[in-house]
Amino acid sequence: MEYKNLDTLKAFAELSNSKKASIKELLSKERVEKCNIAAGGSLTYNYAAMPVTDEAISLMQALADEDELVEKYKAILSGQVMNPGEKRLVLHQLTRGNCLGTPVLADGEDKGEFYSSQLARIKDFSEKVRNGVIKGSTGKPFDTVCQIGIGGSDLGPRALYLALAEYINNSPVKHLNAKFISNVDPDDAASVIRTINPETTLFVLVSKSGTTLETLTNQLLVTSSLKGVDPAKHLVAVTSKTSPLASSKDVLDAFFIDDYIGGRYSSTSAVGGVILSIALGYETFEEILKGAHEADMNALETDITKNAALMDALIGMYLRNVYSYPSTAILPYSQALSRFPAHLQQLDMESNGKHVNRFGEKLNYVTGPVIFGEPGTNGQHSFYQLLHQGTDIVPLQFIGFKENQAGRDIVIEGSTSQVKLNANLAAQIVAFALGKNDDNPNKEFDGERPSSLIYANRLTPLALGALLAHFENKVMFQGFLWNLNSFDQEGVQLGKVLAKKVLNGCQGDEILKAFADLLI
Amino acid sequence: MEYKNLDTLKAFAELSNSKKASIKELLSKERVEKCNIAAGGSLTYNYAAMPVTDEAISLMQALADEDELVEKYKAILSGQVMNPGEKRLVLHQLTRGNCLGTPVLADGEDKGEFYSSQLARIKDFSEKVRNGVIKGSTGKPFDTVCQIGIGGSDLGPRALYLALAEYINNSPVKHLNAKFISNVDPDDAASVIRTINPETTLFVLVSKSGTTLETLTNQLLVTSSLKGVDPAKHLVAVTSKTSPLASSKDVLDAFFIDDYIGGRYSSTSAVGGVILSIALGYETFEEILKGAHEADMNALETDITKNAALMDALIGMYLRNVYSYPSTAILPYSQALSRFPAHLQQLDMESNGKHVNRFGEKLNYVTGPVIFGEPGTNGQHSFYQLLHQGTDIVPLQFIGFKENQAGRDIVIEGSTSQVKLNANLAAQIVAFALGKNDDNPNKEFDGERPSSLIYANRLTPLALGALLAHFENKVMFQGFLWNLNSFDQEGVQLGKVLAKKVLNGCQGDEILKAFADLLI
Repeated sequence: MEYKNLDTLKAFAELSNSKKASIKELLSKERVEKCNIAAGGSLTYNYAAMPVTDEAISLMQALADEDELVEKYKAILSGQVMNPGEKRLVLHQLTRGNCLGTPVLADGEDKGEFYSSQLARIKDFSEKVRNGVIKGSTGKPFDTVCQIGIGGSDLGPRALYLALAEYINNSPVKHLNAKFISNVDPDDAASVIRTINPETTLFVLVSKSGTTLETLTNQLLVTSSLKGVDPAKHLVAVTSKTSPLASSKDVLDAFFIDDYIGGRYSSTSAVGGVILSIALGYETFEEILKGAHEADMNALETDITKNAALMDALIGMYLRNVYSYPSTAILPYSQALSRFPAHLQQLDMESNGKHVNRFGEKLNYVTGPVIFGEPGTNGQHSFYQLLHQGTDIVPLQFIGFKENQAGRDIVIEGSTSQVKLNANLAAQIVAFALGKNDDNPNKEFDGERPSSLIYANRLTPLALGALLAHFENKVMFQGFLWNLNSFDQEGVQLGKVLAKKVLNGCQGDEILKAFADLLI
Repeated sequence: MEYKNLDTLKAFAELSNSKKASIKELLSKERVEKCNIAAGGSLTYNYAAMPVTDEAISLMQALADEDELVEKYKAILSGQVMNPGEKRLVLHQLTRGNCLGTPVLADGEDKGEFYSSQLARIKDFSEKVRNGVIKGSTGKPFDTVCQIGIGGSDLGPRALYLALAEYINNSPVKHLNAKFISNVDPDDAASVIRTINPETTLFVLVSKSGTTLETLTNQLLVTSSLKGVDPAKHLVAVTSKTSPLASSKDVLDAFFIDDYIGGRYSSTSAVGGVILSIALGYETFEEILKGAHEADMNALETDITKNAALMDALIGMYLRNVYSYPSTAILPYSQALSRFPAHLQQLDMESNGKHVNRFGEKLNYVTGPVIFGEPGTNGQHSFYQLLHQGTDIVPLQFIGFKENQAGRDIVIEGSTSQVKLNANLAAQIVAFALGKNDDNPNKEFDGERPSSLIYANRLTPLALGALLAHFENKVMFQGFLWNLNSFDQEGVQLGKVLAKKVLNGCQGDEILKAFADLLI
């Protein structure tokens, strides 16, 4: 298997030189019905409103074959060192509880068994918390769980929790409130501490290294404010076996991850597993894993018209490198997914916002786009003006569900709110694609704005897991296309070094001191 | 006064042809100290890390003069029809409670007096709610206020409320909880309804026309769920005098706005005033108005080195139209500003995401950028990888404060969390600007990433008001530069029309029906 830059691939050259399609000319009732790919976990990916002809699809298939994209995915699954900069394996797919290839042996253990053993511990612990066997230090059962973590230890688990809170409220499953503290800004912890009862709150401290500055600072800020309880009975850790937290007497228990699970890919590991299992039930978390596993299975398809993540990745690359569109909007028509765009922003921009290839050589083409988004219909009353009539074109990823979660709705003027929501979603896809002529240029819509739609019957834990893994796998395939190492993040290091320098008095750096003096 | 396209201005041609500067070469201790502009309301704008030489600044000054930017602002203040498409005045600056020019007469009244009279009514009403003179229908005082509105009736007021919640908690001023329901997705209302006590909750229904689909649907969803209370005693309206809500018997009271206050500019009108005065006290809202007024005053300076909003606007245009950067990130180092980027996203993208000029003629240059952002340090652990090492350059707007709001902090390793937060902020500015050489290209940072910094001692109501108005005025000046009508939003209409069509059975539109069939 070879790792090649995108601009050296024959099929990419052919794709770049092929005729660009008009969405207006392509789009038809039949195309909408045809361009569906089952994505696993009850999800379907639809690319009817994308400017891709049958010829472009066959060139993308040739590109996927020439670049051996599915083979590279299999190399990840089989435990090869796919994070070359840090010389690490990449094993987040193995945390779903199902091995997709041969067993992966590393560090003297079967990694699949290691993750499964942590899952079994999470199941046991979360059930004991939920049924009151494990209580706080004053003898009261826990009713709240609060994660202390930042970046991948925060965004993914938070997005998943918010996505299912109303679903669980509308089910027989018990719901323990979940809270999150992330920012080193002390006002973040203060605003959460104000709303919790220390006697009934269990904190989950998440730091792989056990040394993350923000997280340890917030731990101390929290524990120093816990009046009348024994902090060690109110704190568990999610960390690596070798971290100082792993055997600390300050924690009730510790659950383990390892170096092969990047922060932004850790939602299905103990990083997401502990808090989600405690808050929403282990069975709920297990359904998320099942959905993610189904999406992982789908990503093994070599036929791109049957592989949703791979098709999504190829079309995204096409819009980025051939059309030169610099950003992508994520637009879930579901308030429950309010923080899902923020998670995808990290997942995508931290993975593929790189300027060198996996061998450390500078690239001559653009890589990851800017990712942003808010739920619809809210966004329609906000930034959609630019999306419809701005001077730049922004590709769109819509997400929608036939049914709501909370089961509370009302019929007004002959339709429910859920139907109104989805009427808006269908309308937007068509408005962006086809536009509208008007004698008044201010009321004219050029159309030709590409969009895709991921949809399911309902945002269940299964669908959510598949949605999460779909985007993880899309980002992975795009990383292969751009020949990146999508699993390191060297770009965050310089800021850390300079922040330490400020805290050490700037060490003679006059410019740094001048800026610090404005703020400190 | 003439309205000209940017590409017809002599000074713009000169600016475009002038030599581009290197931030690395420009930046010095002295420059950091020199490039400060007092912005009103205790705020300072610093542009030291922007690629602008003295020559570029003098060309920008010439451009501001040639295009009569401050004169155009004065035309807004004096009540000229500055929203030509809708033939409306633009009067949000007049809602701060201070007239900046001669009185504005329209619709047979003095508009300044009209807004002031609403302010007086808000003061009276909010004080009666806060001191228990006005109670719910079961005789209990209100402890929660919930806004039902979407777009500008939601994002701005929500961002301002979150920005000051901890500030008020750490003050002697009483804090009533505020909640917000916006999305037509019925799960949005359901998740809020679950957390409130109907007996002690006052709802504020915000719709200028009194006909906004999402808002009226949510009103009925809410009132149908209010068991045991009289909805008419728990609901006030913010609307126009001519709307059906103005004299409805279903509301306890109504507060008025008019057609001259665009949704995204309405935070300082009754749209923000009612909920903020009830939740945080009228005096708090008055301080926001005072800060906004000070920023409005600052925007009258004709010397661009003394006018923060104008300088910010000119540099932003320079990076957009000369450097061709397609997006801008808003990065507040304050968790309290967690939703402020979402408000600015609407403000900027809905105002200036246009492809025709104010006369309805198509433009040959790019206009408003994509706006996105999240609070630091959280963003550092997320999308900053792309900002530092991605293939595209994204201009950055940092926001920071010397002191925290909640007054709860902890010293670890010799520094407080607040100092750590600001050490990170100073470090990021320098890292983006200067970068770092390294033999390993994966650890190399090119630098030359432009950023500005808006800072103050503390995020007070005064500073927040100035921050809000600074960006409103920046967007206004950029609209003048691009020769746009920044005050309409025709781009949102087509989606509304097509959504209605879906609700009416698609009326023979086969493509629309095909998409609707996936979702309904």
